[in-house]
Amino acid sequence: MDMVRVDPNVLPVMPVCLVGSMVDGRPNFMTVAWFTRLSYKPPMVGAAINHRQHTRQGIVETGTYSMCFPGRALLELTDYCGLVSGRNADKGALFDVFFGELGSAPLIRECPLCLEVAVAQAVEVAANTLFIGEIKAAHAHTDVLTDGRPDMVKIDPLLLTMPQNGYFALGERVGEAWSAGKNRKKETS
Amino acid sequence: MDMVRVDPNVLPVMPVCLVGSMVDGRPNFMTVAWFTRLSYKPPMVGAAINHRQHTRQGIVETGTYSMCFPGRALLELTDYCGLVSGRNADKGALFDVFFGELGSAPLIRECPLCLEVAVAQAVEVAANTLFIGEIKAAHAHTDVLTDGRPDMVKIDPLLLTMPQNGYFALGERVGEAWSAGKNRKKETS
Repeated sequence: MDMVRVDPNVLPVMPVCLVGSMVDGRPNFMTVAWFTRLSYKPPMVGAAINHRQHTRQGIVETGTYSMCFPGRALLELTDYCGLVSGRNADKGALFDVFFGELGSAPLIRECPLCLEVAVAQAVEVAANTLFIGEIKAAHAHTDVLTDGRPDMVKIDPLLLTMPQNGYFALGERVGEAWSAGKNRKKETS
Repeated sequence: MDMVRVDPNVLPVMPVCLVGSMVDGRPNFMTVAWFTRLSYKPPMVGAAINHRQHTRQGIVETGTYSMCFPGRALLELTDYCGLVSGRNADKGALFDVFFGELGSAPLIRECPLCLEVAVAQAVEVAANTLFIGEIKAAHAHTDVLTDGRPDMVKIDPLLLTMPQNGYFALGERVGEAWSAGKNRKKETS
């Protein structure tokens, strides 16, 4: 297979969420694709927020944020929240906002899955701050659960690809994790 | 919409990659789903590796690692690399391994997209180390490029969901990023 050098500014497939924070006492939401799980126990995540973002101020002020996962039905609003700054628009007014355990991380009732995160550590990375925190509570629509746990197929999340700049749906199930490689494991052990 | 509290140990959709490192002078690969972009300029990423992982030793020793993105054709081998430790198996022998600019981050020729990462910062998060680094070079199969840049649709990446433990393909394109929300932006400005 022929390989070539390409621009190192590569962005893999990125699920998107709306990061919620209280800025100057008002709920604000920002579209974020740079986040990951970081620990299983306790359950921890990290989200990278640019220094210029209005959202950053709210996270620093409250030490908390939310991650709200939109389904396909919220595509237009999700994109809008990435186009407009909370300095210029009241993005909290777009949604049915509620609060959970932390009291300071605004949640979106229309999102099928919402996490409340308490910041444990802020790490500077170039022009961004990675806010690492523990998931203190999670809220899900009853109709996206399977055996009581959130099911990504039912959530129908938005996946961003760049530089093609498209939102994609989750596709077909192509294999079983911690299983598909078992035959090879038997061969080699 | 009815919402309920669920177990906070929630894992969103996660693209998977094979993280490559040289451990005791031998190429090793580990399946990793906890990673994200962290900076646009310079292009930086972070990958979270458990303290017990053989891979961790290699990254600490060399200060480099690779992120190799498998397509669907590598599903079985990708899963296998998450089932077996490099302490017990020569996972480098599974692939056509090559080296790029860094010289110490093993790359997989069968993977349609491979990144070389130089570690800039290691952040401890519970039982894991988040290795933050700069993408120093990227290599892609010629047949996954569109206008000279990697195209995720052509790469056909593996997306992991838990707790359902399935690998999924990228699905249909459902909207345009930085565009779908423009009508609402006009309405409100």
